[in-house]
Amino acid sequence: MTLPRKDLFHLPDGVIYLDGNSLGPLPVGVAQRVATTVRDEWGTDLIRAWNARGWMDQPRRVGNRIARLIGAPEGSIMVGDTLSLKVFQALSAALDRVPDRRVILSDTGNFPSDLYMADGLIALKDQGYHLRVVAPEAVTSELDETVAAVLLTQVDYRTGARHDLTKITQAAHDVGAVMVWDLAHSAGAIDVDLTASGCDFAVGCTYKYLNGGPGAPAFIYVRPDLVDAVTPALSGWLGHQAPFDFERGYQPARGVDRMRVGTPPVVQMAALDAALDVWDSVNLPELWAASAALSERFITRVEAACPALRLVSPRHPDHRGSHVSFAFDHAYPTMQALIDQGVIGDFRAPDILRFGITPLYLDETDIDRAVDTLQGVLDHRLWDRPRFATRKPVT
Amino acid sequence: MTLPRKDLFHLPDGVIYLDGNSLGPLPVGVAQRVATTVRDEWGTDLIRAWNARGWMDQPRRVGNRIARLIGAPEGSIMVGDTLSLKVFQALSAALDRVPDRRVILSDTGNFPSDLYMADGLIALKDQGYHLRVVAPEAVTSELDETVAAVLLTQVDYRTGARHDLTKITQAAHDVGAVMVWDLAHSAGAIDVDLTASGCDFAVGCTYKYLNGGPGAPAFIYVRPDLVDAVTPALSGWLGHQAPFDFERGYQPARGVDRMRVGTPPVVQMAALDAALDVWDSVNLPELWAASAALSERFITRVEAACPALRLVSPRHPDHRGSHVSFAFDHAYPTMQALIDQGVIGDFRAPDILRFGITPLYLDETDIDRAVDTLQGVLDHRLWDRPRFATRKPVT
Repeated sequence: MTLPRKDLFHLPDGVIYLDGNSLGPLPVGVAQRVATTVRDEWGTDLIRAWNARGWMDQPRRVGNRIARLIGAPEGSIMVGDTLSLKVFQALSAALDRVPDRRVILSDTGNFPSDLYMADGLIALKDQGYHLRVVAPEAVTSELDETVAAVLLTQVDYRTGARHDLTKITQAAHDVGAVMVWDLAHSAGAIDVDLTASGCDFAVGCTYKYLNGGPGAPAFIYVRPDLVDAVTPALSGWLGHQAPFDFERGYQPARGVDRMRVGTPPVVQMAALDAALDVWDSVNLPELWAASAALSERFITRVEAACPALRLVSPRHPDHRGSHVSFAFDHAYPTMQALIDQGVIGDFRAPDILRFGITPLYLDETDIDRAVDTLQGVLDHRLWDRPRFATRKPVT
Repeated sequence: MTLPRKDLFHLPDGVIYLDGNSLGPLPVGVAQRVATTVRDEWGTDLIRAWNARGWMDQPRRVGNRIARLIGAPEGSIMVGDTLSLKVFQALSAALDRVPDRRVILSDTGNFPSDLYMADGLIALKDQGYHLRVVAPEAVTSELDETVAAVLLTQVDYRTGARHDLTKITQAAHDVGAVMVWDLAHSAGAIDVDLTASGCDFAVGCTYKYLNGGPGAPAFIYVRPDLVDAVTPALSGWLGHQAPFDFERGYQPARGVDRMRVGTPPVVQMAALDAALDVWDSVNLPELWAASAALSERFITRVEAACPALRLVSPRHPDHRGSHVSFAFDHAYPTMQALIDQGVIGDFRAPDILRFGITPLYLDETDIDRAVDTLQGVLDHRLWDRPRFATRKPVT
């Protein structure tokens, strides 16, 4: 394999896409697969497709395809719902394991929704739980025997700073805490070995580096030796051991199937399944190396061409995910001006320009052109034009 | 309008589809709309589509289209997640309103997942809540001042028996309890006037009579005068008043937007939106009348032709939803034999043959042919053939 593999994606002309860390582009096989699911499976087989087309088992099968990409064993990952809901499930199950402790430890680099879901769970339980949010570099020093669960996103959505999965998991376990990792910006982006990390729970989304499409379902990992002791908090019928027996009492299914909740989003699941075909031809270590090299090139050139920007991502690739961020006072209109010129990254409040570096469909020429465009926006103060100042809900 | 409107659906040749109460058929505009969303919106606009294509607002816009069908005002319904999760949200919010009571009242006709989700919520809260499950006809007599919330599915998924939305809501309110209705088998099937009922919360799914497709998202209704006092239990970022400010503290959005959780399933949402176009040309009272007439015809003919079957649905149409069920000792293989002959209904444990009566795409000829086929299966004891005996996970 040689990277990039632009042939595997629909990439609109005139666009350099540095936002695959937010929504990955459309892989070539997806539109056809979705059309087949809609017209032939739903349209023709109707209710029979649940069995005949394997809809019911798809969340587990797709989970197994993701497992290979993040060092998880077969049968340890279930796909469904949204990342926020999977955070809720994982954190609830984590707290159950340490019933005598009341602290959830997280950091300021965690995605806000993870913290909101933790807040909601704490309020619901109303048993004196406390969410302690510390600086990312303080996580290990703040670990003590009061901590029930550690809830962290491995790669900071703003800075791109990367936590060490194994070291922090070990530190959490050393004080008897349960480890929950959010891999939103890790899966399909960087080297993740869930088994080697020893972590208890992990969750992630599939619409970023896995290119599963807008609103693609999330995933949850439960370490196989734990899963049969987990009582799901969101105990929907498809996590029941025999959902179609319609029994009164909830009996969790064996294994990670118990983390299912309701009817799976079959059409999104088909899109994701087809999107994962991309990974059949990807050499993962080669991808990670390419990400580091392209990111290094981007950082070096931006720093040379755009001295007004300040790198907020770690300089060493081992300490980064697969996006690079710069701070700038006029970040919002600068990103709007860049997008206007076909270089799509995104803005994160309050002052961050964020660029996803995705070697599946970006090469050195793209990186260089993006930097040239960014330099032009800054040199000509295009960010100062009124039409770039109006905030939109997204990006 | 004259019913049926078979022209609005893809209906496979040789099939009489009596399972639209489980998964509605494919409306004609859906495949094209999904293809556009995938190829033109995702494929071309990429991340920009969240604003440019209105993806972010779609759950509310689609909610407004559903609102019209069930007598709810604009802005009172949010679409997303699965029905089980919306049950959890509604029930949690209901319990919050009556903090000094500990009983949740439901009935044996409720869908098991609703009860499983209640069990899960009770375990999570661990504050002495109790789920009391009584016979459907005993609900009002079991209401007293200990009841915090009443959680019922309006139409029994097995028998088709229908609760009186307004009377039971009034009875619940009379004892100070909060009313939560599950409209899974009501929306798009029977006359529902949520505003007139006065109920506090309602939830439903969209893949049955609303034909939104496999895994289509669910909906939640909150009575408008309550909604700004509701604290969402599943407090995801898209229910935040300013999700893209990425603030540390969760501040619920105004109105029913606070019942959003995570990223919406854009492709499923597009399918549902297109499916709802069907309803632009439907006269609802005419539809309900046609359902009653076709159901009456079906019952009369089955009882005449198939004396071994026993009607378990109420005989009066005002007491039924839009499906009809018969009990039979050999129900499972009988349904398999029927499906084998192109008449698709479904089986519900332990002994129920269930037939959805959907006048949008069924006429009297379909009903008569279905009965003839059923009679043939019984007269020739086709249910006794070994190949129909093996249980499949679904139907």
